[in-house]
Amino acid sequence: MTVVRSTLPEEARRIAAEALQDTLVDLLGLSLIGKQAHWNVVGPRFRSVHLQLDEVVAATRAQADTVAERAATLGVPPDGRPETIAKVFSLPAPDEGWLRDSEAVQLMTDALGAAVTRLRERIDTTEKADPVTQDLLISITSELEKQRWMFEAENVPGTS
Amino acid sequence: MTVVRSTLPEEARRIAAEALQDTLVDLLGLSLIGKQAHWNVVGPRFRSVHLQLDEVVAATRAQADTVAERAATLGVPPDGRPETIAKVFSLPAPDEGWLRDSEAVQLMTDALGAAVTRLRERIDTTEKADPVTQDLLISITSELEKQRWMFEAENVPGTS
Amino acid sequence: MTVVRSTLPEEARRIAAEALQDTLVDLLGLSLIGKQAHWNVVGPRFRSVHLQLDEVVAATRAQADTVAERAATLGVPPDGRPETIAKVFSLPAPDEGWLRDSEAVQLMTDALGAAVTRLRERIDTTEKADPVTQDLLISITSELEKQRWMFEAENVPGTS
Amino acid sequence: MTVVRSTLPEEARRIAAEALQDTLVDLLGLSLIGKQAHWNVVGPRFRSVHLQLDEVVAATRAQADTVAERAATLGVPPDGRPETIAKVFSLPAPDEGWLRDSEAVQLMTDALGAAVTRLRERIDTTEKADPVTQDLLISITSELEKQRWMFEAENVPGTS
Amino acid sequence: MTVVRSTLPEEARRIAAEALQDTLVDLLGLSLIGKQAHWNVVGPRFRSVHLQLDEVVAATRAQADTVAERAATLGVPPDGRPETIAKVFSLPAPDEGWLRDSEAVQLMTDALGAAVTRLRERIDTTEKADPVTQDLLISITSELEKQRWMFEAENVPGTS
Amino acid sequence: MTVVRSTLPEEARRIAAEALQDTLVDLLGLSLIGKQAHWNVVGPRFRSVHLQLDEVVAATRAQADTVAERAATLGVPPDGRPETIAKVFSLPAPDEGWLRDSEAVQLMTDALGAAVTRLRERIDTTEKADPVTQDLLISITSELEKQRWMFEAENVPGTS
Amino acid sequence: MTVVRSTLPEEARRIAAEALQDTLVDLLGLSLIGKQAHWNVVGPRFRSVHLQLDEVVAATRAQADTVAERAATLGVPPDGRPETIAKVFSLPAPDEGWLRDSEAVQLMTDALGAAVTRLRERIDTTEKADPVTQDLLISITSELEKQRWMFEAENVPGTS
Amino acid sequence: MTVVRSTLPEEARRIAAEALQDTLVDLLGLSLIGKQAHWNVVGPRFRSVHLQLDEVVAATRAQADTVAERAATLGVPPDGRPETIAKVFSLPAPDEGWLRDSEAVQLMTDALGAAVTRLRERIDTTEKADPVTQDLLISITSELEKQRWMFEAENVPGTS
Amino acid sequence: MTVVRSTLPEEARRIAAEALQDTLVDLLGLSLIGKQAHWNVVGPRFRSVHLQLDEVVAATRAQADTVAERAATLGVPPDGRPETIAKVFSLPAPDEGWLRDSEAVQLMTDALGAAVTRLRERIDTTEKADPVTQDLLISITSELEKQRWMFEAENVPGTS
Amino acid sequence: MTVVRSTLPEEARRIAAEALQDTLVDLLGLSLIGKQAHWNVVGPRFRSVHLQLDEVVAATRAQADTVAERAATLGVPPDGRPETIAKVFSLPAPDEGWLRDSEAVQLMTDALGAAVTRLRERIDTTEKADPVTQDLLISITSELEKQRWMFEAENVPGTS
Amino acid sequence: MTVVRSTLPEEARRIAAEALQDTLVDLLGLSLIGKQAHWNVVGPRFRSVHLQLDEVVAATRAQADTVAERAATLGVPPDGRPETIAKVFSLPAPDEGWLRDSEAVQLMTDALGAAVTRLRERIDTTEKADPVTQDLLISITSELEKQRWMFEAENVPGTS
Amino acid sequence: MTVVRSTLPEEARRIAAEALQDTLVDLLGLSLIGKQAHWNVVGPRFRSVHLQLDEVVAATRAQADTVAERAATLGVPPDGRPETIAKVFSLPAPDEGWLRDSEAVQLMTDALGAAVTRLRERIDTTEKADPVTQDLLISITSELEKQRWMFEAENVPGTS
Repeated sequence: MTVVRSTLPEEARRIAAEALQDTLVDLLGLSLIGKQAHWNVVGPRFRSVHLQLDEVVAATRAQADTVAERAATLGVPPDGRPETIAKVFSLPAPDEGWLRDSEAVQLMTDALGAAVTRLRERIDTTEKADPVTQDLLISITSELEKQRWMFEAENVPGTS
Repeated sequence: MTVVRSTLPEEARRIAAEALQDTLVDLLGLSLIGKQAHWNVVGPRFRSVHLQLDEVVAATRAQADTVAERAATLGVPPDGRPETIAKVFSLPAPDEGWLRDSEAVQLMTDALGAAVTRLRERIDTTEKADPVTQDLLISITSELEKQRWMFEAENVPGTS
Repeated sequence: MTVVRSTLPEEARRIAAEALQDTLVDLLGLSLIGKQAHWNVVGPRFRSVHLQLDEVVAATRAQADTVAERAATLGVPPDGRPETIAKVFSLPAPDEGWLRDSEAVQLMTDALGAAVTRLRERIDTTEKADPVTQDLLISITSELEKQRWMFEAENVPGTS
Repeated sequence: MTVVRSTLPEEARRIAAEALQDTLVDLLGLSLIGKQAHWNVVGPRFRSVHLQLDEVVAATRAQADTVAERAATLGVPPDGRPETIAKVFSLPAPDEGWLRDSEAVQLMTDALGAAVTRLRERIDTTEKADPVTQDLLISITSELEKQRWMFEAENVPGTS
Repeated sequence: MTVVRSTLPEEARRIAAEALQDTLVDLLGLSLIGKQAHWNVVGPRFRSVHLQLDEVVAATRAQADTVAERAATLGVPPDGRPETIAKVFSLPAPDEGWLRDSEAVQLMTDALGAAVTRLRERIDTTEKADPVTQDLLISITSELEKQRWMFEAENVPGTS
Repeated sequence: MTVVRSTLPEEARRIAAEALQDTLVDLLGLSLIGKQAHWNVVGPRFRSVHLQLDEVVAATRAQADTVAERAATLGVPPDGRPETIAKVFSLPAPDEGWLRDSEAVQLMTDALGAAVTRLRERIDTTEKADPVTQDLLISITSELEKQRWMFEAENVPGTS
Repeated sequence: MTVVRSTLPEEARRIAAEALQDTLVDLLGLSLIGKQAHWNVVGPRFRSVHLQLDEVVAATRAQADTVAERAATLGVPPDGRPETIAKVFSLPAPDEGWLRDSEAVQLMTDALGAAVTRLRERIDTTEKADPVTQDLLISITSELEKQRWMFEAENVPGTS
Repeated sequence: MTVVRSTLPEEARRIAAEALQDTLVDLLGLSLIGKQAHWNVVGPRFRSVHLQLDEVVAATRAQADTVAERAATLGVPPDGRPETIAKVFSLPAPDEGWLRDSEAVQLMTDALGAAVTRLRERIDTTEKADPVTQDLLISITSELEKQRWMFEAENVPGTS
Repeated sequence: MTVVRSTLPEEARRIAAEALQDTLVDLLGLSLIGKQAHWNVVGPRFRSVHLQLDEVVAATRAQADTVAERAATLGVPPDGRPETIAKVFSLPAPDEGWLRDSEAVQLMTDALGAAVTRLRERIDTTEKADPVTQDLLISITSELEKQRWMFEAENVPGTS
Repeated sequence: MTVVRSTLPEEARRIAAEALQDTLVDLLGLSLIGKQAHWNVVGPRFRSVHLQLDEVVAATRAQADTVAERAATLGVPPDGRPETIAKVFSLPAPDEGWLRDSEAVQLMTDALGAAVTRLRERIDTTEKADPVTQDLLISITSELEKQRWMFEAENVPGTS
Repeated sequence: MTVVRSTLPEEARRIAAEALQDTLVDLLGLSLIGKQAHWNVVGPRFRSVHLQLDEVVAATRAQADTVAERAATLGVPPDGRPETIAKVFSLPAPDEGWLRDSEAVQLMTDALGAAVTRLRERIDTTEKADPVTQDLLISITSELEKQRWMFEAENVPGTS
Repeated sequence: MTVVRSTLPEEARRIAAEALQDTLVDLLGLSLIGKQAHWNVVGPRFRSVHLQLDEVVAATRAQADTVAERAATLGVPPDGRPETIAKVFSLPAPDEGWLRDSEAVQLMTDALGAAVTRLRERIDTTEKADPVTQDLLISITSELEKQRWMFEAENVPGTS
């Protein structure tokens, strides 16, 4: 059922759609593992990390929504179903159970770093295909890189 | 690592924890398929159903957070990771691709109805074990039943 | 026309529906006589009682809405039409014309007290049938009892 | 008990008071049947009509309050008791039970239309008696006519 | 210095201007005596009357601003200087010193009543001259009559 | 296609509709030339006039919406299409290019003055036909006259 | 009169200015026909489409303001006068009179689609000339494409 | 009637009361002439001065309220009646009629300057008598001096 | 002086009243020691714990108010006087002087844990006597258990 | 454990600290007896006094927080534990049980009056030692004296 | 101490970091001279320019924060210390002392113009190195160019 | 150019002006080093200290504005230019580069402590010269001492 027509030529649409679908899974996955860490974190920095993680969740949920609606806008139905996320999501993720605060911070530094690396590739890929999609990916990268910095800065050891 | 001590006796804790973990997966799953339908719905009722679905997403996300933190409060680490949801979630869910408005409405009626049936069993199970957990499940049921009614009322055919 | 399916077994649905319909009439009636007193009160305490009555009206209107939608949720169409209220409503009510402030306060103490007595019976009746409905009736009772206290405390005579 | 003195001559007061009392009953009745339809509407347009009806309820409740307080201001105690509404209210009204969306829309078009016709007569009647009351009736008419248009526009059949 | 040209013919402008200037003095005077009573009221109803008086002050200040700007709009410089108010203001007013609550209530009933009587004459006078000015006077009258009612209702004696 | 029935007799409807359609074009035109001046004004008073013009734009846009919906309410489809405005709009308007601040102020004084003159005629015309429409035109006139005063007062030369 | 100096070289300024002026007319035109459809739409989806159209109007009005001020910033006086819009605007537009809901939805899908096609050309044109202007056009395109999707998704026929 | 007992010794109370009563008249007078100038100002700076004057009015009204309630707090009934202001107020004030913008600015500079001079004397007088009253007078002086600076800075002639 | 009549039978009232009075003292005590710790905490986690403690204070103050008003509602005057709290309060509490952050966290874990244990007993006791009171105690327990978890999670030692 | 160094010399610190600690107990005590009266007041003025008392509670809670943090700022750990309040607090306080409205008003007049007397002594004591602390005590005195006035004005008998 | 790892290759990081550090100094300098002019401006346009300058300060402060955090995000510690700004800042700046309004407007036109010229170079430089940084610089340029236009438009001489 | 006349005698003005100018530099310097630390802080307490530093920045920016405008009010042009801050600012300040969290906390404790010492001297100096300026310096000292306490309390070592 082709219901929404794309405003892009076919090849450009294909490239943009793939970049968007991959980004959607990364963002939904980040929002889920962010919440998982938000609930399971323990340790002296609990409260601070608990609140910080919810900011990642809020950011990635809003970004996922924008990304999915951009895909639909291009005539490509986005796929954010549980089984799709579970199958495709490949960023670093927490194990089951309690998570020490320093582990949670390291995990988010790694997961956000990996997400950024993948986004930067998609920024290149979409430059010609669709500058509107590229602009969206740039703004997501900007936000996730900032979040990553704040986690990394937090894992620098205190003075002994 | 046993980090948070329960304020409940062991058996009661086990019962409440199981009810909460199962509810958590149902709610996270509902929030994901709610968004999936929000993005993929098409048809004359697009705008109305698109907005209505986001209310389900907002409600189930907030409820999932409360449920997961209640589990942690009882000393049981909640599990809301992508692979857990994919493996355990068993409510009716959409296929990939565009979704006609009437299909989306029927889907949510069914999914919410199934969720409510399972919640009512857990309300019975937790009555003795933990009235605090039971009270939380009652308020979630109340909200989901209301949402279900609004979808069902919407699928009554118009006058011919 | 059976349009909304109940999520309850038939007998439970019947009990809950009756409790909700009776409560709906009580609440709509209270909101109407609350406004009637709000408009017709006179006396030195006019302003204070005039404002206090509007809080009762706001509370009972919101409760009536929740109760009626709970009935619909259970597959039972609620009935809040003028003729139904006039026929069924049986709580103490004001006569036509101006109302002295002390009379208004006494009237609301009596009307709210009678409503609470009836609600407490319905809390018992619905305990087995539907704990979700029971929980709603408990919260309404809590609010109306508090309103009743504030009117009763106000009718204690001043120091002579 | 004559407690509030009118700022109008007797005959003018009588005319204005009658217009206000009749309007009060119409508005309270509209707010009650608006809620009745809000709760009982079913059909594909459920959500849209459900929300639209609540705007009528909010508008008529606020107008009823202003009208009743205007009567009191003129020294005439307003009467908005359940039995008065049931006895006097004569605009089109719904039967008991579920209401199809198109029926609800037609009902409100008719009820609002009848209310407007009656209001226009009272605008004429009060012109000489009390321009302040007339101005209030004009503003109510303006709002109800707008609401009527929106229901009527909604019942124009879709393209076949 | 004729700086702002009127949009009205000369005679209409003269009539409207006079009605507005007289109303301006009444409103500024009411706002000053309202504050005077707000500060000096004593007695068991102190708090209630203290708050009620501030509503009169807020209303009359806002109305005075609208009235004065309407005069300027018609090309007539409004005069709200202290000496003008002192010379022209002729509504009932408080003496120096503390004011019992019942006296304050009676004073406002009388002052607002006198203001309304004068406004009603100006509503007649301006009908032909300038319906825009008349409409403004009608809305001020509506508000002041309501305030008057609330003070008068408050001075009805309590039950013995 | 006659889709919305008027609540007025035919002749009254014709008169009110014509007044509303003419007013609609005036208001849409004022909002467009207000924006044009807002963008192109230069001179020492740039910031003050730039902000003041946006208040005219906001006011006339809101009024145009009310006026158009009033026409629809009376069963007459309003016409606010670009070509209609261009063809019918006849108030003073700016030339292409930068506009000195004093020119912008003079232009708005003239354009608003001309609009008010035309509105006052329509207030007369609609008095018998439809007091609800007349009341709307009165309130628009009141606002535009005030805006005109503020521009005119601003063009009085400073002290030399 | 050259009053605002450009921060761009002459040729770049010329290219950016043309892109901005053309975009300004498209956006002002869209805001006018959006309102026209908002007022004249009829049919079962009236309320939903009526509200959706106002979102297009709000978006295009805000965008038009940004675009016009960007032109002024580059030293080029923007032209948004009624006659300019009427002469230059060439996107699909409604005829006079009532508009069925499906026609309104189709019209907006077409008009927004045509606007997007033209914007994409201007994104190319301005890339070298002025990346700041290009970035603005990209964000406008992003928003209009999303609006277009929501109208198109809405015109997919319901299940028979 | 001595109704409110002072918390100060008699002599201190007398000194503080006199300072407060004199300040009250100055502030009420400033608020009245501020409004007078707000309504009657004309000239190229109309809008800017019109808005600035309303800030003086808002500030002095709030300060007058605090000062009067401080007097009542000390057991001294404040006097802010029209005739008292007219008799006692002695700061520079405007004549009847339109007021050029530069005259309004000069007037406020002078009136605020004179008020500040008088306040500084009262700050000295009340230092021993009542540091609470002194602190209030200091904060009023701080605000009025700031307002005075802003008017004075505005009357520095522009570059020729 | 029996001034407020209970809506409960005598024995039920006695049980509910005792549970409420005991809870009131626990909550007022928790709010006081929460503030004491809020002011005296020192150590690297000062800011985080300082803020967290204020959330406990806000929660327990609001709960104490609800509990006391529930007692009054049942016709039993609540007792929250300083000497009563000092005499009856028996939860873990801080010594005088500065409090290290880890000690503050441990203290709150213990105090909240003890409060919860006592609340759970009262939930049992009041089940039959008064489900409205029980429901209130359940919601307080839910909140305090959550607060306890957050303190306990915070005292899990960091990674060495 | 000396953890926070004072920014004052030792003797000044001692004087300021004592003034602050004594004030802290007075304020916490006032907030507790204010709530006690808020819950137990009865009589015709119930609602008015009930609300007024909550304003005292809100004010004294906020002031206590500021005072305690000022002590900590000076390097002195504040003591606001239940046993300290019970032992040290010596202002007039209510007995157990219901409290007539006039008694509550008299009690607060007396308690606030006594608190003010003590604060005025501390204003003297701290003048040389620490003007920052003195300034804080002045502002607290100002607020409490105003509250005292409002209660005292309220206990002036009504006209017989 | 290398504490935050860059997500960019070394050379790209060096280019982006230099662009960001230079921009940071420009923005902090602009915010400081904006405030300096805000405080020292005098002349007939004082109020308007005083307010306009604060908008520049608010904008440049927010931009400086974003730019500095972007540098940290790239692993480069930003330098915004007073001595660095004083040494490096080279945009046009005011002398000590009062500043006539026209001088302040000219100064800001020049300083913003110079800042924009430098930003446009950095937009070129960073295009390949880091599109995320480039996008940030584009949005800052857009805002500063708009501010520059508004100052320049304001310095066009008035009509003689 | 003497443009704003002082409301103080010459010697008092000189003393107050010097105190204000010195305070202005301290506050602007604190706001700059506060931001510098906000951007460069690293370590386990990153998030908490990062947020805390922004509160210092917000406070000192607002205080600097008040202080500079107070100087202008006294007829003395304030000097807050980059070169003035760099030359005069002498409080402890950070080096270039990343800053460990404990170092940042120590730095702010020292810098705020030094600022407070200097402010206390100015409080003495200005007591006779200008109590309005003194009052301002007292309130700034109060806020900065509180900020210093919170940093110092945070650097107390945790339990080993």
